[in-house]
Amino acid sequence: MQILQVEGSLVCTSRIEGIKHSVFRIVRDKNGVRQAATDPVGAKPGDWVFLASGSAARFAAGDFEILTDLTISGVIDHWEPDA
Amino acid sequence: MQILQVEGSLVCTSRIEGIKHSVFRIVRDKNGVRQAATDPVGAKPGDWVFLASGSAARFAAGDFEILTDLTISGVIDHWEPDA
Amino acid sequence: MQILQVEGSLVCTSRIEGIKHSVFRIVRDKNGVRQAATDPVGAKPGDWVFLASGSAARFAAGDFEILTDLTISGVIDHWEPDA
Amino acid sequence: MQILQVEGSLVCTSRIEGIKHSVFRIVRDKNGVRQAATDPVGAKPGDWVFLASGSAARFAAGDFEILTDLTISGVIDHWEPDA
Amino acid sequence: MQILQVEGSLVCTSRIEGIKHSVFRIVRDKNGVRQAATDPVGAKPGDWVFLASGSAARFAAGDFEILTDLTISGVIDHWEPDA
Repeated sequence: MQILQVEGSLVCTSRIEGIKHSVFRIVRDKNGVRQAATDPVGAKPGDWVFLASGSAARFAAGDFEILTDLTISGVIDHWEPDA
Repeated sequence: MQILQVEGSLVCTSRIEGIKHSVFRIVRDKNGVRQAATDPVGAKPGDWVFLASGSAARFAAGDFEILTDLTISGVIDHWEPDA
Repeated sequence: MQILQVEGSLVCTSRIEGIKHSVFRIVRDKNGVRQAATDPVGAKPGDWVFLASGSAARFAAGDFEILTDLTISGVIDHWEPDA
Repeated sequence: MQILQVEGSLVCTSRIEGIKHSVFRIVRDKNGVRQAATDPVGAKPGDWVFLASGSAARFAAGDFEILTDLTISGVIDHWEPDA
Repeated sequence: MQILQVEGSLVCTSRIEGIKHSVFRIVRDKNGVRQAATDPVGAKPGDWVFLASGSAARFAAGDFEILTDLTISGVIDHWEPDA
């Protein structure tokens, strides 16, 4: 499971019905590469989180019908990206 | 979910039946690496979009039988690729 | 969906039963990295094609039981790899 | 299946219900890139392990409902990372 | 499907029940990056093989319950890695 940092929220007016009312976050790795992820946890900017990808991401989103491939599964208590 | 920019449409006369009448776009990352994606949203060249991959891409295409592994799920309102 | 160029066919005498009588091609990206892919389309060496990966590859092969993870889905009409 | 080294445990107070009481480990490759993985085996820091990813990771966790995409499947008896 | 070279067998005493009595091989790419794969074909060290990944790997292993994500599907008759 990838370990990434929350950067902020994703604003996206035009979207398909299948993602419903999910909250999306922008997450990035330590090199700054960014992806979008659904967030059922309520993570805050700066949090380091671990994420489920693939079909697990849909289960993790709490609803298999939500069309995501990346979901925040938990907030890590302490994390040093360059440990 | 990957965040990519729409470059244009994909013209493909010879194709398997399983992709039906889907609209395909060429999408690229900020380094110029290009992929093909189904587009149920109607994205325009220059738009930054986020995409569902894997089995979610088939649901996102609005028809599980469409044989894609990458589907545009939404157009991002504002996006700075090098933020 | 990846966009790759067909290099030629793959000769493989010793193989598992689950891949049946599929035709396999060698495909490569613009850096020369090569993979094997099933080909239900009849692509020719030099063609640029787009491919379904993951579970979609099995559907795209026309038979879910064919044990592939990469299938040529269509031949692109015109393609400039460095556009 | 990836071959990675166990670094330690992951402490994560705030997490979704779907990961239940799984034990998570931090695993890293020989370049130091780290991921989180469920551990049904009881691996120790320093062990080199191989891991199931994707939907196999959920089966490997002993419960398909555990929302992971990476699970330690076995501890390798002897391993030289730079062999 | 990835094309990799067999390096040898994987010895792993402590492992989960879900991988049963599968034979595992160490496989590597031309840069020396190594992974573990199930082998229902009986490949020998030095052989170049192509492999099914993801859920296809479980079907290819001859038993969907085997918890692998990478399975050798066939031995390539002739292969020049730098062709």
